[in-house]
Formats: sequence, C-alpha cells, structure tokens
Amino acid sequence: MGGVTSVPRERPIGVFDSGVGGLTVLHELLVALPHEDFVYLGDTARFPYGGRGADELERFSLEVADVLVKRRVKLLVVACNSATAAALPALQRRMMETTLGIEVLGVVKPGAVQAVGVTRNGRIGLLATPATVRSGAYQRAIEDVDPHVTLLSVECPDLAGMIEDGFPVDERVVAMVREYCGPLREGRVDTVILGCTHYPLVRPMLQRSLGPDVSMVTSGAAAARQVEHALASRDLDARREGEGDYRFLCTGDAEAFRTVGTRFLQMPLGDIERVAAGTERAAA
Amino acid sequence: MGGVTSVPRERPIGVFDSGVGGLTVLHELLVALPHEDFVYLGDTARFPYGGRGADELERFSLEVADVLVKRRVKLLVVACNSATAAALPALQRRMMETTLGIEVLGVVKPGAVQAVGVTRNGRIGLLATPATVRSGAYQRAIEDVDPHVTLLSVECPDLAGMIEDGFPVDERVVAMVREYCGPLREGRVDTVILGCTHYPLVRPMLQRSLGPDVSMVTSGAAAARQVEHALASRDLDARREGEGDYRFLCTGDAEAFRTVGTRFLQMPLGDIERVAAGTERAAA
Repeated sequence: MGGVTSVPRERPIGVFDSGVGGLTVLHELLVALPHEDFVYLGDTARFPYGGRGADELERFSLEVADVLVKRRVKLLVVACNSATAAALPALQRRMMETTLGIEVLGVVKPGAVQAVGVTRNGRIGLLATPATVRSGAYQRAIEDVDPHVTLLSVECPDLAGMIEDGFPVDERVVAMVREYCGPLREGRVDTVILGCTHYPLVRPMLQRSLGPDVSMVTSGAAAARQVEHALASRDLDARREGEGDYRFLCTGDAEAFRTVGTRFLQMPLGDIERVAAGTERAAA
Repeated sequence: MGGVTSVPRERPIGVFDSGVGGLTVLHELLVALPHEDFVYLGDTARFPYGGRGADELERFSLEVADVLVKRRVKLLVVACNSATAAALPALQRRMMETTLGIEVLGVVKPGAVQAVGVTRNGRIGLLATPATVRSGAYQRAIEDVDPHVTLLSVECPDLAGMIEDGFPVDERVVAMVREYCGPLREGRVDTVILGCTHYPLVRPMLQRSLGPDVSMVTSGAAAARQVEHALASRDLDARREGEGDYRFLCTGDAEAFRTVGTRFLQMPLGDIERVAAGTERAAA
C-alpha cells in the first residue's frame, strides 16, 4: 500500500461495522483525531455478522465499502473483528483497484501489535466471539509480530448480545464477565485484547475481575493509533483548527440505531441517514 | 494521621458524597482495589452541596461521617470536591478523636499531586463548580506541591446539573464543554484536572475539545492511588482472593439513586438502604 496518492485531505474517513459495536472504535477515533471528518455505516439490516460464513462476510463488506467509496472517503476502517478477520484482504484488493487507491485498515492487526508492545511476561489473553477466535486471525497476527508470545483465547458466545440488550448492566453481566476472565487469570496473562467492539462497555467489570495490574487493549484505541500513522505517512491528515464533523448511515431502522448507538459512542449522534448497502438508495 | 492502628483490615472503606457524583470515584476505587469492601453514602436528601456555605458543609459532612463510622469503616474517602474543600480538616480532627483513629482522605490534594506529576509545561487547567474554584483549595494544594506551576481555573456553573439530568447526551452538552474548554486551550495547559465528580461522564467530549495531547486527571483515579498507599502503609489492605462487596446508603429516594447512579458507577448497584444522616434511622 502507500505510494503517492491524489486523495484530497479534506475528505472524511469511512468507518463501518455490522451494527453499533463499531461506534466504540469511532469513539476512539473522534477523541484521537478531533480535526477529521468521519462517516460511519452500520449494516444493521444484516446484523449480526458474527454467525455468518466468511464468503458472506466478504460480500457484505465489499457492498458496504462501495457505499462509503461513493461518499468519497479518503481512508476506510473496518471497525468489526468478524469482518476484518474474513474480508480484509478482499477489501484491500478492491480498494487498491479504485483509481485513487484508498487504504483499508482493520482492527485485528493493530490490536495484536499494541498487545505485543504492552505485555511484559509474553502472555496475552483474547476475549472475542467464537467466530473471531476460530478464524485464528489474532493468533496469526501475534505470531507474525512476535512468535515468542503466548496467546490464550476465550470464546465469549453470549457477551456481546447481553451488552447490547442489557442496559442498565445487571449482576448477570458481572457473573458472565467473571466466568470468561477465569481462564485468563489462571493463565497469568498480563495483557488482554478486547477482541469485540462491544466489550469496552464492560471494561470496568473486566478490569475488576482481571485485577488492576492487567493491561487492556481495545480495538478502537489500537485502530486510532494506526489511522493516525496512515494519514500522516500519506500526508492525508486534515489541517483545520476546530473539530470535524461526523455523521451516520445505517441499513436498518435509524431510531433503533440512535437509541443503542448513543450508549456505544458516548456522544450525541445527530443525523442518521438510512441507506441500502450496494445501491445507496434509501431503503425506508 | 499515621501511627500504629488497631482497625481490622476486614472492614469496609467508607465513601461519601452529596449524591451520585461520588460514584465516579467509587468506580475507580472498585477497579483499582477489587479485593476491598466498600460502603457508599449519598446524602441525596440534601443534594446539592455546591451552593451551600462552608459551615453547613462541615456540619453535613460530620453527620454523614458519623453514619459511616457506625458502619465500622476502616478508612473514609470524601468523594466530593465541595465537601473536601470545606470540611476535610474538621473531618480529620473528628476521626482522629475516635478511639481507632480512622484516616480521612479527600479528592483535592490527590488530584493536585497527580496533575503536578503529569504536567510537562507547568501549566495546569482546572474545571470545577464555582464553589470549588472560589474556595481556592486546588490553588493552595498545587502551590503547596510545586509553586512554579501555573493553575488556570474555569468555573463551570451549569455542567454538573446538565450531566445529571441530560441523558442521552445531546449537542447542548457538547457546546457547553467546548465553551468551558476554550480558555484552557488558549492558555496552553497540557494537563486538566476534572475538579467535579460528574465530569468523567463527559470525558470523551472534553478530550476531543482539548485535543489528544492534553492529559486529564480525575478525582477518582487520583483518590484511588492515595487510598492504595494509605491502606498499604498502615497494613490495612484486605487480603482475599476474590472480589469484595460494595453497598449503598442514601438519605433520599433509593430508586432515583439507582436510576441515575448506574450511569455514574458503570456497574450494577445492588441493594440500596435509605438512612437518615446523623441518626441512621430509616427515613422512608
């Protein structure tokens, strides 16, 4: 990737996910890169991506990316662990074929790199959906960065759904968090990757269960760092004084997206436009 | 303070505030000290403390402290900037008079110490209620730690109320945050003390407005560090494997406390007991 590009720096950064989870990634991007514009697409009509096959995820991801390319984004962030694991190479090929050569960043590699940079005892834990764990994407990414690091993965089949549905949080969430953290405590990991974009919402419970000496790495913080590098290295960073804009597209119901989304973004959502992935015609 | 004590380490840590704001301090304590038990008292019947005089705050604080002493706490944390600024010396005198010599920690000095430790350009900002700013408590605490540091204080008369009432957050909160951050950006501070326990709930908006290079110091994180030191130095830290308990007392309506409190604690609240400050009889 890289090389000289003619994408104008004034354009927004595109971010997509199957639903609201990626808003925790957008949250970190908004805090780390306040001068940039963003356009976020939640493919809520086809949520969740978690249980789908790799071929389907690839097709959905390419369709969603097309919508964002038509919105003239300068960089594309796949804010979804499942879609990153299944579709990143295909997305990167497709985006490089477009005339301007838009770069595509996922959330797996940045998280793996950051975790390897943080661990001191070389033992990293991963909490993620079964699909993400079984894809082996984090295992490969970590081996690639440092083959001497051990990764302990825990499949959390019910946690994302309970976080999305369960507000305010109750004791069932605490009990579930405690159960999933058990193997990581026993495995003496000193760093844990939150390998699902929903998990930052239970970060305090996770930290309490893992203990204060365990470092946590979120997809959002790791992706924000890499986006910052990608923009700077390609001379694509916005050069304005004030805060940029951010706006939302979704393929499902806009008001449902707003209600749950505000909790995930921790900021007001503003306008939400309903679109159809692939055609960009309003589906409502 | 200090000296040998006979307080048993199994006892809970007492935490109090005028309402739910101190739950952001308890939040940090629960994450940093997972093995400790806590009992939190919200004096919600007399909320808010912000507009009251120093004499009244001192009286209220002593009454509330008495309730917690009867609950046999081993350490007392004043999780309220107004009460710390007005009543800490009186509370410390009173607690030293009790037979066991319970230590009392406030939130002002730990925040000042942490901010001085973090700043690199020697320019610190303070966001707080008018009462806290005008008390001069942060100014004195910072001069005491490092007289070469400059403190820029911004009074935020409406922010705490808007945070407590306004959920989900809307554009008015963002506009207000932007306004209060303006003088701090112009003043080129590199560190900002969130001098009110409500402000961590708008931390992402504050960080976005101040820019990613500005460090933020919360009352909760700073107090948690000092509580950790106080327990360790007096050999009072709980020695158990699992997570401790936490429970709640309030002087006002318990269900109102739960509804707003869950947002502030970011964890489930469990049982809430209604008490009368000073007599510990149920007021309901």
